[in-house]
Amino acid sequence: MSLIVMKFGGSSVGTTERMSRVAQRIIDKKLQGDRVVVVVSAMGDTTDDLIDKANEVNDNPPAREMDMLLTTGEQISVALLSMAIHKHGHAAKSFTGWQAGIVTEAVHAKARINDISPERIFSALDEGNIVIVAGFQGMTENGDITTLGRGGSDTTAVALAAAIKADVCEIYTDVDGVYSTDPRVVKCARKLDQISYDEMLELANLGAAVLHPRAVEYAKHNNVNLVVRSSFNQNEGTLVREAAEMEQGIVVRGIASDKNVARISVLGVEDVPGVLAKMFGALANNGIDVDIIVQSGVQDGKADFSFTVSLSDRQRAIDVLASIKTEVPYRETTYEEGLVKVSIVGAGMVSNPGVAATMFKAISDVGVSIKMVSTSEIKVSCVIAAEPVQEVVRALHTAYGLDTAQTAFVGGPQERR
Amino acid sequence: MSLIVMKFGGSSVGTTERMSRVAQRIIDKKLQGDRVVVVVSAMGDTTDDLIDKANEVNDNPPAREMDMLLTTGEQISVALLSMAIHKHGHAAKSFTGWQAGIVTEAVHAKARINDISPERIFSALDEGNIVIVAGFQGMTENGDITTLGRGGSDTTAVALAAAIKADVCEIYTDVDGVYSTDPRVVKCARKLDQISYDEMLELANLGAAVLHPRAVEYAKHNNVNLVVRSSFNQNEGTLVREAAEMEQGIVVRGIASDKNVARISVLGVEDVPGVLAKMFGALANNGIDVDIIVQSGVQDGKADFSFTVSLSDRQRAIDVLASIKTEVPYRETTYEEGLVKVSIVGAGMVSNPGVAATMFKAISDVGVSIKMVSTSEIKVSCVIAAEPVQEVVRALHTAYGLDTAQTAFVGGPQERR
Repeated sequence: MSLIVMKFGGSSVGTTERMSRVAQRIIDKKLQGDRVVVVVSAMGDTTDDLIDKANEVNDNPPAREMDMLLTTGEQISVALLSMAIHKHGHAAKSFTGWQAGIVTEAVHAKARINDISPERIFSALDEGNIVIVAGFQGMTENGDITTLGRGGSDTTAVALAAAIKADVCEIYTDVDGVYSTDPRVVKCARKLDQISYDEMLELANLGAAVLHPRAVEYAKHNNVNLVVRSSFNQNEGTLVREAAEMEQGIVVRGIASDKNVARISVLGVEDVPGVLAKMFGALANNGIDVDIIVQSGVQDGKADFSFTVSLSDRQRAIDVLASIKTEVPYRETTYEEGLVKVSIVGAGMVSNPGVAATMFKAISDVGVSIKMVSTSEIKVSCVIAAEPVQEVVRALHTAYGLDTAQTAFVGGPQERR
Repeated sequence: MSLIVMKFGGSSVGTTERMSRVAQRIIDKKLQGDRVVVVVSAMGDTTDDLIDKANEVNDNPPAREMDMLLTTGEQISVALLSMAIHKHGHAAKSFTGWQAGIVTEAVHAKARINDISPERIFSALDEGNIVIVAGFQGMTENGDITTLGRGGSDTTAVALAAAIKADVCEIYTDVDGVYSTDPRVVKCARKLDQISYDEMLELANLGAAVLHPRAVEYAKHNNVNLVVRSSFNQNEGTLVREAAEMEQGIVVRGIASDKNVARISVLGVEDVPGVLAKMFGALANNGIDVDIIVQSGVQDGKADFSFTVSLSDRQRAIDVLASIKTEVPYRETTYEEGLVKVSIVGAGMVSNPGVAATMFKAISDVGVSIKMVSTSEIKVSCVIAAEPVQEVVRALHTAYGLDTAQTAFVGGPQERR
């Protein structure tokens, strides 16, 4: 008898009809003899509808009240899903985040989970219930309702799985699992059987929308076995786990691309000590996430910097730089949009020379020039013009042997066999 | 500086536009220097929509999950209303029932409030907030979410007013106050300036839908000053209070009619001791409310009984009687629909002879025969054919002098002056 957490996203429960299908799926698991805890998101467009309503009364609603409003979406889901399970003749109990003992920090709209007291979950399980918990939400110690921000339901599922020491946390979604790259871009993209937390983290951060990075981090930290699989079929899905437990020999596991990129250049910065800290400190203090940073060589005591931010932060980043110009003197700022960041990810690349070279060659063979490069132990990212990104991804997919079976050894061209 | 509870029903906040108007009204009260606690129902059709959704997944949803579902309606209202108040530049904090400290018995769909711990309300008021509480809902001691049943938001408002010792509890609705009879039936129906709890209770029970009987009971028990007034204009409304504090001399204060009536007759019941207790005990145990009961004289050791129930309970009542036929032997049951119960209500009638006679005469003058009669200290009810009830109500309204100013003394015809 296993203890299992199953998480269903908004599209899996988008209609009451789908809700009934999900109920049957949950019951099947229970009938296998497992103890089942389910985490659900709000149905389909519910959250967007609520946001629209909020904006009708206040174009800048206070975060506390927004959390109060949005958490009703998941509360509706859990109640309906519980009813659907009862309809099929099985016992179920739904719980809001606070009822499930999920305590968060006192921050609205993007609270982190501080603690989970799973007593009520266990006693409902002991009574023979399927337990259904509202994703995305929690409560502060003072009893205010909070939300966990984007991808919050994934985080709820993983955090619950850690708190109740579940054997596995299954994330049900509208795709079959994690792919070697976006199947809408590259036809021969393959579903991965397994992937390490770190690889998944890079892929999640790089715009592969299957799993939220925070949930993956939480899973890694608590060593929760995660499975990403489809709510529409019985296929096996992708297991996300410790790298140590995985088959070796895969160099590049996946390719991600992210169009939400703007490049900002700060030209003629006076090269005095502490200037970088001031510049990026000011950006961080204004909540702007900076991704790739490149510094060109210093000439005449002046340096040029480039960095990438998300498109929505572009103007604000430039404003922040303008506001600190007396402290961090520079000649001018410029920016560039219409870019894409393409990344290859794989835990094996750290021990394989030539991986980056293969990437550069594949990109240049398509006739595309590289604007920025960033590397980590398990990924290489290149910023290039957004067109023709599909060709670039396809070329990389082929160059790293991802078009064929996953177990093939894949290295740089010199090691290919 | 007064402490005021304002309650707004679903139609008062039916759209986000109306929500903004209600926000302004609340702010006006606050600007007078009052401390304001607001209770809100779910917006317009929200509750019905949620019930429809529930029925799509389960035609007989469990009550616990139904409460979980329905309480989101009020949670949405309080969040949006708080946002609307913020929009106008004033501080507000919304609270669910459990956050407001409303503890109920462990019964779903129609829980009674056991206790209110208003600490959070007071501290939010002390911070300068307008406090907004979700009506209709509470929490059991075990942390399950409950609802208070029909009229629950009125009850929340009155119970909160009692718990925080508010100076007044204002119930905002879509009518100007309590009328001498239904203004849609009798054109010259007049708005009452005041009415006693007991009179209001009879009127509320008799189908005057302005205030829920439980709320009135609660107000009477805790001596809460209730005001019923319109959310669409600034008119004064009707004050509901202790009879002792009211002007004397009014015999009949209002006339109510209720079409939700079916008459069941049980014929040829063996007249043995305990037969009535068994019969009505069985009905009560099956949750069937019996209203008027009439017994005809006993003949040959057999009696005939008639009683009224609500239309929806009619078939069930007959089934219950069939199920106890061995214990309570009778010849047959019959029923009659298409009836209406017309009632006159007034605390003054107890000391006035001839009040009932005036009623019977007015009804017979319209050419209508009376099928059942029931009297209490402050009301007389007659069950008659549903047609022509409007003429009957009009005739009674005139007979008791209600067409003219409220302060007129009104008695039976022999006392009329």
